[in-house]
Amino acid sequence: MSNLDGLLSARARTARSSVIRDLLHLLEQPGMLSLAGGLPAGDAFPTERFRLACDRALSRGGPYGAAALQYGPTEGVGELRDLLARDARSLDGRTEADEVLVTTGSQQAIDLLARTLLDPGDAVIVERPAYLGSLQVFAAAGASIESVPSDEQGMCTDALEQQLRTGLRPKLCSVVPNFQNPSGATLADERRVHLAELADRYGFVIVEDDPYRELRFAGSDVAPIREHTELAVTLGSTSKVLAPGLRVGWLCAPAMLRDALVRAKQAADLHTSTLSQYVALDLLTDEPFLRAHIESLCSCYAERCGELADALDVELGERCEFTRPDGGFFLWVRFPGVDTSSVLEAALRVGVAYVPGAAFTTDDSCADRARLSFASLAPEQLREAARRLGEALPGGRAVATTPS
Amino acid sequence: MSNLDGLLSARARTARSSVIRDLLHLLEQPGMLSLAGGLPAGDAFPTERFRLACDRALSRGGPYGAAALQYGPTEGVGELRDLLARDARSLDGRTEADEVLVTTGSQQAIDLLARTLLDPGDAVIVERPAYLGSLQVFAAAGASIESVPSDEQGMCTDALEQQLRTGLRPKLCSVVPNFQNPSGATLADERRVHLAELADRYGFVIVEDDPYRELRFAGSDVAPIREHTELAVTLGSTSKVLAPGLRVGWLCAPAMLRDALVRAKQAADLHTSTLSQYVALDLLTDEPFLRAHIESLCSCYAERCGELADALDVELGERCEFTRPDGGFFLWVRFPGVDTSSVLEAALRVGVAYVPGAAFTTDDSCADRARLSFASLAPEQLREAARRLGEALPGGRAVATTPS
Repeated sequence: MSNLDGLLSARARTARSSVIRDLLHLLEQPGMLSLAGGLPAGDAFPTERFRLACDRALSRGGPYGAAALQYGPTEGVGELRDLLARDARSLDGRTEADEVLVTTGSQQAIDLLARTLLDPGDAVIVERPAYLGSLQVFAAAGASIESVPSDEQGMCTDALEQQLRTGLRPKLCSVVPNFQNPSGATLADERRVHLAELADRYGFVIVEDDPYRELRFAGSDVAPIREHTELAVTLGSTSKVLAPGLRVGWLCAPAMLRDALVRAKQAADLHTSTLSQYVALDLLTDEPFLRAHIESLCSCYAERCGELADALDVELGERCEFTRPDGGFFLWVRFPGVDTSSVLEAALRVGVAYVPGAAFTTDDSCADRARLSFASLAPEQLREAARRLGEALPGGRAVATTPS
Repeated sequence: MSNLDGLLSARARTARSSVIRDLLHLLEQPGMLSLAGGLPAGDAFPTERFRLACDRALSRGGPYGAAALQYGPTEGVGELRDLLARDARSLDGRTEADEVLVTTGSQQAIDLLARTLLDPGDAVIVERPAYLGSLQVFAAAGASIESVPSDEQGMCTDALEQQLRTGLRPKLCSVVPNFQNPSGATLADERRVHLAELADRYGFVIVEDDPYRELRFAGSDVAPIREHTELAVTLGSTSKVLAPGLRVGWLCAPAMLRDALVRAKQAADLHTSTLSQYVALDLLTDEPFLRAHIESLCSCYAERCGELADALDVELGERCEFTRPDGGFFLWVRFPGVDTSSVLEAALRVGVAYVPGAAFTTDDSCADRARLSFASLAPEQLREAARRLGEALPGGRAVATTPS
């Protein structure tokens, strides 16, 4: 057969795979405790409520048969867009229904924005560390990825301003403002205002990727960046609050970007599953259910976050450093003097998985970090996972007592 | 606010919208009879069976909670891939499970192939006329789109060979082999063999986009192109046989393309809805249901095709020409001397919609054609639609009797 390698596009030859997803097969290993994935708590899925939602979704008629089974508008189901716009407007004071585009998960929203805004070589700004899925999209788009350091308050916008002053001209800047993936940090209000000012001054789009907002278990809400500038595109998702299996996300974008985004969406997959959209609509419009469900998720994640953090303190003590997040799924842990990529194999051998910090950057600034997800394991499993980490890491008990 | 136009990518500035989807709002007009969409018969959806399928899908467990609600593998749900591979192998004698990638509708499969194979300026071959969704993708990818004429036997592969001999070097060639959209033509067996030989000789990928295969109501099955060459990628879809609202399609590709396609899929939307995949799996594994359902769809479309064709003969007589297809959704009608784009407005005024032939080409070779879908209207509506067409078209009664 002909050698297909020669047929591959430039982007296909250079694209990077997600370290996280490449590790997924390890989850199959019996007894493995994985802190690696970003999976929501499976035991918290409201499965029975989903059964009802499917039933109701399938009962909706339409001019061409059951609406949840037929083709739908590229932009998304009208009622769902209205609802999402109302919710967004209550936060940003700005969003109208025609600015909402339903996407196949918010991952697709990032991809559609890249298609719409980026030509090869264009500069994009990401946080250091950054959401892996955005790095993949920007790399595949051939963008020049520039990162800005972040701390416990999120992206250091002063550092960004410095880069802009010295000539950097990005097309977009991508941030996860609440309980960032992987750092857990929430972008401080004054930095949001500053970032919005920079976007207005230098003319770039802010991609405000916000899937964890409702999962706050400490501190208080911060207004979205989109409140401060028309140049922000806010992304939302049902993946963390309802279920990732639906693949229902959305973006709220300036009306001027709408046509280009809709055309890109049309070419990408025509529209997002109407079954998923009507199921999501049924759940999102049931306010008593939704309020109680989110409340129970927040307690669940608060408990798990506390368990893992406490257990790390006990098992690793000064061998690790981290800040407890106010919400979300992740602890971003520093293991001073440890290269977390090299140690991963040892960790897997004792039955615990994590994502090395290097995966979230384009440099080696986070080589001594690891992302630990507390979302999908039960408290006792989190304690055992911390114990195994203590065993696997240099200076840990296992290294001293059971050399192999 | 800043002018966002300057921020748009080159592809966003040049992308074309789908004429069909732009017309969708006209479907809302009361009393409109639309032959324009490619929607399957809404009254034939097995809605009750879907209810059961959702119920069963939600009953499946998994290591991280209900499998239909949790994140899943980028490649698609394992059991579904196994099933699709088995079905494909029974036709092409070749496909293995690891060559199957589940996609968010087969539209996404086209898009992923474009990302994986095409750089701006690369040549692609399409049929004349071609599936609109593929034209959109290739245009957005910045490809140089070359079309090859087709007739009642599908793409004229002799004409393609001529173009290849005179130096054309395409990366891929896209065809809809069965009951083509829009022409209704089925690619003849000897042309499939010829096309496969050309792909092997000149080193390009054949995209065999085959969503209508099961909807044959006349003639006999023809073996897929993928039986004849390893360089064919076959696309399938549940949209026409089960329901487009699921957005579950797939591709069967040479294993060598697998990694690049999976990376592209990961960046595009992580994976296809697991809820949709498990629902599709439940329906596709229920053989007695599936056999009876497809049989009933075939009779339904056979009847509708016959009704529309007969009514056009009666209402328009020699003012139109067409070949009756052996399956699928479409009549590809020639109205000699008529520019179907110019007449569309008159047609809409009398309450009938179609897609002008010009939408399916990059030249004006099909300006006197229209794609008429018989799939989604009942027989009496199809007769009335034909009557209205007769009224709207030059030489028709309305033009003679009620000039406006």
